[in-house]
Amino acid sequence: MEQVLVVGSVAFDSVQTPWGSCERVMGGSAVYFAYAASFFSPVALVGAVGEDWPDEFTQILQQQPIDTSGLCRIPGKKTFMWRGKYKANLNERETLEVHLNVLGEFQPRLSPEQRRSRIAFLANGSPRTQLAVLEQLDNPALVVADTMDLWIREESDLLRELLRRLDGVVLNDGEAKLLTQEENLVLAGQRIRAMGPRFVVIKKGEHGALYFSERDTIALPAYPTARVVDPTGAGDSFAGGMLGYLASCEQLTSQEFRRALVYGTLVASFVVEDFSLDRLRQIDRSTIDKRLETYRSMFQF
Amino acid sequence: MEQVLVVGSVAFDSVQTPWGSCERVMGGSAVYFAYAASFFSPVALVGAVGEDWPDEFTQILQQQPIDTSGLCRIPGKKTFMWRGKYKANLNERETLEVHLNVLGEFQPRLSPEQRRSRIAFLANGSPRTQLAVLEQLDNPALVVADTMDLWIREESDLLRELLRRLDGVVLNDGEAKLLTQEENLVLAGQRIRAMGPRFVVIKKGEHGALYFSERDTIALPAYPTARVVDPTGAGDSFAGGMLGYLASCEQLTSQEFRRALVYGTLVASFVVEDFSLDRLRQIDRSTIDKRLETYRSMFQF
Repeated sequence: MEQVLVVGSVAFDSVQTPWGSCERVMGGSAVYFAYAASFFSPVALVGAVGEDWPDEFTQILQQQPIDTSGLCRIPGKKTFMWRGKYKANLNERETLEVHLNVLGEFQPRLSPEQRRSRIAFLANGSPRTQLAVLEQLDNPALVVADTMDLWIREESDLLRELLRRLDGVVLNDGEAKLLTQEENLVLAGQRIRAMGPRFVVIKKGEHGALYFSERDTIALPAYPTARVVDPTGAGDSFAGGMLGYLASCEQLTSQEFRRALVYGTLVASFVVEDFSLDRLRQIDRSTIDKRLETYRSMFQF
Repeated sequence: MEQVLVVGSVAFDSVQTPWGSCERVMGGSAVYFAYAASFFSPVALVGAVGEDWPDEFTQILQQQPIDTSGLCRIPGKKTFMWRGKYKANLNERETLEVHLNVLGEFQPRLSPEQRRSRIAFLANGSPRTQLAVLEQLDNPALVVADTMDLWIREESDLLRELLRRLDGVVLNDGEAKLLTQEENLVLAGQRIRAMGPRFVVIKKGEHGALYFSERDTIALPAYPTARVVDPTGAGDSFAGGMLGYLASCEQLTSQEFRRALVYGTLVASFVVEDFSLDRLRQIDRSTIDKRLETYRSMFQF
């Protein structure tokens, strides 16, 4: 079982959904990824917070096999914060407020131990920062990144350089269409793979995910749940479940990749059932494996 | 193997998509359903056409195990015609022209043999017409209907009466939300089932389908294909593949229902690869079963 490195945002989130709201709860791409991955493998989290970051939040992460020594607290600064509101269908959201704070000038520096990580997730951030982290890895074997519309629009050249050097990329359907100017997601996935990554995952929220590798084109549905309280973090949790599981595998076979996609799907299905990490904090690997059996039974035909 | 009865529209379709266009090709809910179902079971088609309906179209249907004796040609009338245009994403379409013609006053009268059908599909039509067909069945065992936004808005009471008497209903995601005023499709499916049908299928186009019965909640992805030329008829073909397969089963077990959903998914995935019935006319049961194996392999995890 290998350690998974994740570099990304650590945040205060304030979220309104049709089901309720929350104020300054723990969030951020690296946090969701780390917690999700930690059900399967040890995780090293690298990110920055401000003076206002509560120790209790760090302690919540430490209750899982998450090494938080890479969580830098920057004196005189505040933690990144995001405030958003979801529409009734929970698929669209509006950013009401965003303060980069410490994230504005954060340049991740990996420790010697972190540099030796073979499996890493470069959570959403500028391609420049993602490339700078990639450069620091001594012997990368499975490096996966997320991206977003902002970087596709504004840092297209650097993003393409990053894509050439990645093993995998995880992005949502709107981003995949934007990046390829292709409406058919199967074509979009193939085009992105042609830009460099060995595999591509296109996340479709409530509609599941698509996966593209040289050998496989796979569509998986989301776990059908009536309880969707807050979709925040679902995508990063998907990536966390997926890479966390892969880090626990002896060999990265085609079947293990499929199972990794399913674990990503399932961890994400728990995350959305409550705000922040609240639902994940109530479950363990056996809860996930129980849902795996229910999910698997949909495909007994 | 039982015969499946389908009552619905028979049409001239003229369609524009980003991939091309076609003029006055064979279409209509009953036509797509019948052809799809005929890969699995014999079908009796009931519908009306005008004087302008070409014999060649009927002959195309007769090349499959489709009994077209219920296809009434109305003297002095024209066939129903629809002209539509799909947007770039192929999920939204605009009706440019529609002429009900013979459909305007068509009152389906079943023959004694048709009345003995135990498995029937009431393709999209007014709930009044659908109920009138249902009344004529001597011994219905599995009656499934489609509906659309028009009837949900304008014939709500009759539609609810129909739902109380159906075994199953097949509708798309937008219609399910409209009918239940519920954005979460899992909740929407449960609510529709509470209106009467033993099972509910919510079709999501490129995102697959959801199925709800007392025992099962199932999500299945669409077959991931880069070749989507014209989505017209996909929903009716889904229903046709599903009911056609069920009509071929000795027993309607939970597993057979799951397989029926998969066959619906797969037949629909062929239909969209070309205009009208063009792609279906190139395939047979073995082509579908080959794709079944590819589809199944996505779920080996």
